[in-house]
Amino acid sequence: MNGAESLVRTLIASDVDVCFANPGTSEMHFVAALDHVAGMRCVLGLFEGVVTGAADGYWRIAGKPAATLLHLGPGLGNGLANLHNAKKARSGIVNIVGEHAAHHIRHDAPLTADIEGIARPMSHWVRTSWNARDVAADGARAVEAARTAPGQIATLVLPADTAWNAADAPSVARAPAPRAQVAPDAVRAAAAALKVPGAALLLGGIGVHEEALAWAGRIAAATGCRLLSEYNCPRYDRGAGRVITQRVPYVVDLAVKSLADLRSVVLAGGRPPVSFFAYPDKPSLQAPADCVFTRLAGVEEDIVGALEALAAELGAHGVAPAHVARLDPPGLPSGKLTQEGIAAVLGALIPEDGIVVDESVSTGRGFAALTTHARPHGWLTVMGGSIGFALPAATGAAIAGGGRKVIALEGDGSGMYTLQALWTMARENLPVTVLVFANRSYNILKGELASVGAGAPGQRATDMLTLDRPDLDWRSLARGMGVEAGQATTLDELAAQMRRGLAAAAPYLIEVVL
Amino acid sequence: MNGAESLVRTLIASDVDVCFANPGTSEMHFVAALDHVAGMRCVLGLFEGVVTGAADGYWRIAGKPAATLLHLGPGLGNGLANLHNAKKARSGIVNIVGEHAAHHIRHDAPLTADIEGIARPMSHWVRTSWNARDVAADGARAVEAARTAPGQIATLVLPADTAWNAADAPSVARAPAPRAQVAPDAVRAAAAALKVPGAALLLGGIGVHEEALAWAGRIAAATGCRLLSEYNCPRYDRGAGRVITQRVPYVVDLAVKSLADLRSVVLAGGRPPVSFFAYPDKPSLQAPADCVFTRLAGVEEDIVGALEALAAELGAHGVAPAHVARLDPPGLPSGKLTQEGIAAVLGALIPEDGIVVDESVSTGRGFAALTTHARPHGWLTVMGGSIGFALPAATGAAIAGGGRKVIALEGDGSGMYTLQALWTMARENLPVTVLVFANRSYNILKGELASVGAGAPGQRATDMLTLDRPDLDWRSLARGMGVEAGQATTLDELAAQMRRGLAAAAPYLIEVVL
Repeated sequence: MNGAESLVRTLIASDVDVCFANPGTSEMHFVAALDHVAGMRCVLGLFEGVVTGAADGYWRIAGKPAATLLHLGPGLGNGLANLHNAKKARSGIVNIVGEHAAHHIRHDAPLTADIEGIARPMSHWVRTSWNARDVAADGARAVEAARTAPGQIATLVLPADTAWNAADAPSVARAPAPRAQVAPDAVRAAAAALKVPGAALLLGGIGVHEEALAWAGRIAAATGCRLLSEYNCPRYDRGAGRVITQRVPYVVDLAVKSLADLRSVVLAGGRPPVSFFAYPDKPSLQAPADCVFTRLAGVEEDIVGALEALAAELGAHGVAPAHVARLDPPGLPSGKLTQEGIAAVLGALIPEDGIVVDESVSTGRGFAALTTHARPHGWLTVMGGSIGFALPAATGAAIAGGGRKVIALEGDGSGMYTLQALWTMARENLPVTVLVFANRSYNILKGELASVGAGAPGQRATDMLTLDRPDLDWRSLARGMGVEAGQATTLDELAAQMRRGLAAAAPYLIEVVL
Repeated sequence: MNGAESLVRTLIASDVDVCFANPGTSEMHFVAALDHVAGMRCVLGLFEGVVTGAADGYWRIAGKPAATLLHLGPGLGNGLANLHNAKKARSGIVNIVGEHAAHHIRHDAPLTADIEGIARPMSHWVRTSWNARDVAADGARAVEAARTAPGQIATLVLPADTAWNAADAPSVARAPAPRAQVAPDAVRAAAAALKVPGAALLLGGIGVHEEALAWAGRIAAATGCRLLSEYNCPRYDRGAGRVITQRVPYVVDLAVKSLADLRSVVLAGGRPPVSFFAYPDKPSLQAPADCVFTRLAGVEEDIVGALEALAAELGAHGVAPAHVARLDPPGLPSGKLTQEGIAAVLGALIPEDGIVVDESVSTGRGFAALTTHARPHGWLTVMGGSIGFALPAATGAAIAGGGRKVIALEGDGSGMYTLQALWTMARENLPVTVLVFANRSYNILKGELASVGAGAPGQRATDMLTLDRPDLDWRSLARGMGVEAGQATTLDELAAQMRRGLAAAAPYLIEVVL
């Protein structure tokens, strides 16, 4: 077998069985190997940002890495923004990036670039496999790196001659090490910290998954502490039966106000809240200066075990969790499209075990309250702040979900970055209902322009913050990629359209005209 | 004035008066400065690959740099692939990349990334301007770097506090140094090298611009040498009145065959021909092993002056150039769409002083012959091999062209990478006629799969090389972005559609159904 085949067999033997791909010439032997080795689901993306964002969404639902297949330095470059989001989310991904044959690199052909240099800023682990006899072992190491808790971006560069030369048998990745346990001292310190007035437990990472939340709810019941979660988390388990947390607000002033009474915060996967951006005369750190942070568990540690131990330390092991959401979806509203009304439609219609991928940016800031008592669901947010996340991530989440219904909440500005994902949804027949909130502007930036004190926008600035002239027609864009689409101009239409989308076995796009 | 304003005024004073932009929060002071300082044309792209590709196309026509405005590390990441193409084309670009305020970076907010690390692989010059009082001088240095012959990618990172803090007066870039003159020894050596049987002059860079071509034609007339040009050049001046060169073929076997009789090659902006990719059992270097290369002028040197001196050395100063194309466009063909027929339609309809941006990939390999005697035009090709070039580059070329008609030749696979450019064409009302060659596949890869010896594709490989299931509908995609569109299924329809597009003052897209 050649190097490409030994790598493909290594990935499959290591339980990496989905490959999001946008290959080129230098990856043709890898493609050929995928062709004749069974066991890998290959999903084509028509742009690399789709590929890497899909791998991020896949990890967040499957809890295991997918592979990506990218074409040399520029292909990796196109995938960087969503790798940035995945890196910040601590998603595990195995990138396979083609490279010229080793002897060809010195000739500086058009596609020659510093691939490792491009990879490094967005990867935890980077290696070039220069020898076909090493590539199986390197592939196994890449999978191990990707699975290292809480998850890592591993980038393996595959020169074409490594792919085509003769190789040995495939390898297999070692089983992932269990997450590091938290020391008893940290548990005792956390217990003491929660007995202070103005105490809170701040969750992040898998701290907002169902099992951790249940322990957090018991701890809150025993101590009366507030339960906070980071503004963004890779996946919140929410809805009926799940313990409710207060998400730290995005807007700096609101965050500062919300945290003002805190004196003692225990961190379980969370970090001291930081403003998304810097603003003149606004703080980077949002908690009061005299608030003491006590680290129970880092995002890479055994958060569930630490919370369980903390509950035991607090005598809360058998206590009923506080703040458990009941099943109480809002009634379907009617009339004009409002943020609150859209939230109510969502809350009413999120299906059991649904997955919401949220890049609704400015439109979606009020969605949390009215979806708290919806049917149980996962809620994915963009972790690195790089827009163009939701459509690709919804694609990957749907593939990981194996039939679970996915709702993608997308801004029109952010949706345009990686709209090619719609085509992949159509080809793979994925049950994704896409809501595009068409406000015809980078609405968030209008607020930001004011927040940074840059004043009211004139004509040139307005032109750079608006998506009108011409208006985007999302129904045409969707149909152009084989996705059925409709439009909603009222809450009634939105509900009807969402029902239609959720009933379909294929993707459906709704242009929500704001 | 603040740092942002001092930088904007510096750029304008340095003759950088177009800014392709996709800003975010950290760039809001720069946007505000663009707003109240007159003199900069701001062009919004809905994806950063559009922004950087437009700046590349702009340079190739305007011969001076545009600025880009990009949002932090991920925004720069999204622009990397077309910066790669621009870097290989040696286009001059001034990238302004926002960064968090200096004091905010250590808090590792979601968008924090190693911006300089991301910039470096695709930039010749990188600097972060940490102080508002330095940013004007840094901006001037960036413009100087971008204008350094033959052109460079200059990336200036602009922290938000540098933008908002008080600054001094703007600066201005020094005038570009003239290109380095070639030593008389090199001219004499080149003259001797052209007297050998089997001699050729190989042109690249501005060696295929009109003035250099005229000297090359005289040299060919005097010596009988072959006139070759690199497979890709930033801009070929072609058509009636221009000296014809033989483009080195893309396909390795054809290139090797075409160069087989060469014994002595003089390089004027060109390099020894290198295969685009490596293949098992095919050479990286395409000329015969015993062919001697003599460097007359590098791509950064005074190629025109060197050719003029070489002509004088050869006694060809007053000779009429050989190989001058006459005005003899082909007649309009009729019937089925064939490569040759499409080439003839192009040859017949390219307007006087038109600009062709060619990313037709596999479809366009035969276009050269039948467009040689068309009306005079510029022909831009992708220099770095990263697809997604033509629509953005056509956008920038049209802005630089100030009314010149632009024809973008685009594959359906490559077009999907940066289709957002259509919206910018519509907003800016640019006279771009886009031909999308819809073969519903990465057709080039089918050939490449065979070329690398990876065998015939099975189902999984075929799925990764085809864009069907569902078919892309380019008319819907265009209309979704406000661009009128039609379809051509015959040569007659293609001619009619092209006439319609070229007559319009706005963009028009033709889906050419292959």
